[in-house]
Amino acid sequence: MITAPPTDDVHLPALTEILLTVQDEILAALEALEPTARFRADDWQRDPVDLDDPPAELAGQAILQGGGRTRVLEGGDVFERAGVNFSSVWGRFSPGFAESMPVGDGDRFAAAGLSLVIHPRNPHAPTVHLNYRRMVRGSAGWFGGGADLTPYVLYEDDARHFHGVLAAVCGRHGDVADYAAMKAECDRYFRNRHRDEARGVGGIFFDWMRGDDAAGDAAAFDFVADAARSFLPAYLPIVCDRRHLPYGEAERDWQLHRRGRYVEFNLIHDRGTVFGLRTGGRTESILMSLPPEVRWSYAHAPVDGSPEAALLDVLRTPRDWV
Amino acid sequence: MITAPPTDDVHLPALTEILLTVQDEILAALEALEPTARFRADDWQRDPVDLDDPPAELAGQAILQGGGRTRVLEGGDVFERAGVNFSSVWGRFSPGFAESMPVGDGDRFAAAGLSLVIHPRNPHAPTVHLNYRRMVRGSAGWFGGGADLTPYVLYEDDARHFHGVLAAVCGRHGDVADYAAMKAECDRYFRNRHRDEARGVGGIFFDWMRGDDAAGDAAAFDFVADAARSFLPAYLPIVCDRRHLPYGEAERDWQLHRRGRYVEFNLIHDRGTVFGLRTGGRTESILMSLPPEVRWSYAHAPVDGSPEAALLDVLRTPRDWV
Repeated sequence: MITAPPTDDVHLPALTEILLTVQDEILAALEALEPTARFRADDWQRDPVDLDDPPAELAGQAILQGGGRTRVLEGGDVFERAGVNFSSVWGRFSPGFAESMPVGDGDRFAAAGLSLVIHPRNPHAPTVHLNYRRMVRGSAGWFGGGADLTPYVLYEDDARHFHGVLAAVCGRHGDVADYAAMKAECDRYFRNRHRDEARGVGGIFFDWMRGDDAAGDAAAFDFVADAARSFLPAYLPIVCDRRHLPYGEAERDWQLHRRGRYVEFNLIHDRGTVFGLRTGGRTESILMSLPPEVRWSYAHAPVDGSPEAALLDVLRTPRDWV
Repeated sequence: MITAPPTDDVHLPALTEILLTVQDEILAALEALEPTARFRADDWQRDPVDLDDPPAELAGQAILQGGGRTRVLEGGDVFERAGVNFSSVWGRFSPGFAESMPVGDGDRFAAAGLSLVIHPRNPHAPTVHLNYRRMVRGSAGWFGGGADLTPYVLYEDDARHFHGVLAAVCGRHGDVADYAAMKAECDRYFRNRHRDEARGVGGIFFDWMRGDDAAGDAAAFDFVADAARSFLPAYLPIVCDRRHLPYGEAERDWQLHRRGRYVEFNLIHDRGTVFGLRTGGRTESILMSLPPEVRWSYAHAPVDGSPEAALLDVLRTPRDWV
């Protein structure tokens, strides 16, 4: 059961409704590709705490309230691991964290978001990540999120299709969404700086999005809702096409090593993961982003001139796809 | 080639000599257990930079000089991955980092250390980690390090043996080394706080160790040298015993999932790893600590009353082994 957060923000409940619908649509679409594997439902809810008079042991700490709908599919024919989570939470930031935020006032917050990571089994099919959320702090509210693609074999058509759908969404909301800026921000953010390479071929990424007035906020809301709904058209055709391609142990081994880079990004650099784990977020829901099976080898690198080397070139120097 | 750092600290060159010898002994002992697999040598050296007049693009950044002897064995019969690295480095801390250090003065440093992580293939044989180092900042120098054991199947005899050897080393240097305190510090440090469990059954861990005078520093040096030499007697008998035990897919699967917890600790919580990667350390040498093959599953947990559950009990509530 999703409990509404204690805030009079108008966009939180409206976005909650849309994201829950989108979650259901995504679950149904992914399951339709699976002969037998099904999503496991894990609904969770934090024990209520009086935020105005919390127990002494929570002094100085962040307090998280609310709950979520965690949905996970593992061991499928097409999807080796897929997590599609909605959560609606609120509470109190820790004092230090609240002060570091550039927007809003006070230490109370509320947030609703949809978050997914899909790891297909076939190395020809790319991993994909999506997150769309609204955050409210005191009197200010804003949107954030994005979607990005991580291929193991570079199919330029796939990158162009995925970016094309996102660019079209941004184009429909040109007053609030600048595709080129959000694409650049995605390349900047999803980068394994310790390896000087991007996590994947990118997509869009944005944060702190809000309008100058109620109409501007409503336009931002419309963009985020549209972007969330565009996930299936952006990703599904790619995985439908690629899941049947034959592959051998060499492609699988490359995929498992590249998944190691995915783990490195999420655990070392991703602000959401690191912040969530350090401040008492729900570990299993946060770490559902990790791939099911991963390899590391010393100084693992592709052969010059190979398709794997071509992928790395693109990861080192992000390209324009639209 | 190991170049001596530009410092007149007397313990750095002496510890370098000892740690290089210990490294060779460990390499030879591990190889002796392997029918055919051998360590691969990768010596590395940073391009020299004038620390008093560094290039403009390094303004405000940490600068690392020196080099190391990286040694890695992969795909062995006994050791699925083993990294045994010595490094001797020096340079300039970034301004913010230097100010955060409680000991020494200025932004120049020098350090020498031996670092190893061994991941055996057989789930009955534990992973082990060791690091001993000397760090010099300005006019102050100190020692740090330790060794700890991460079993996948709990053999209490193994934990008692490993801790017993470390306690005996500390006992021989009672003026500088307090086993009980270092054991407690190890339990505190190597903890996956986001899962409320220790990484393994611990060992010893210490930092900022220095004497009140030259004699005290010499005593600390003797302890560290002795501790480094005690690695083989502490670990080798365990892996010798356990490597032949039969196991099946269930034990392997458990091991791969527990290795996931090892990755989580190293990438999320380990100060050395995170600091190293963020400040331009050598990625491949730092990430050699990661296991070769790893699994994650949603809400992975052992059956009540199983040997795996018994291990988790010990990880949640560390025990005394001596």
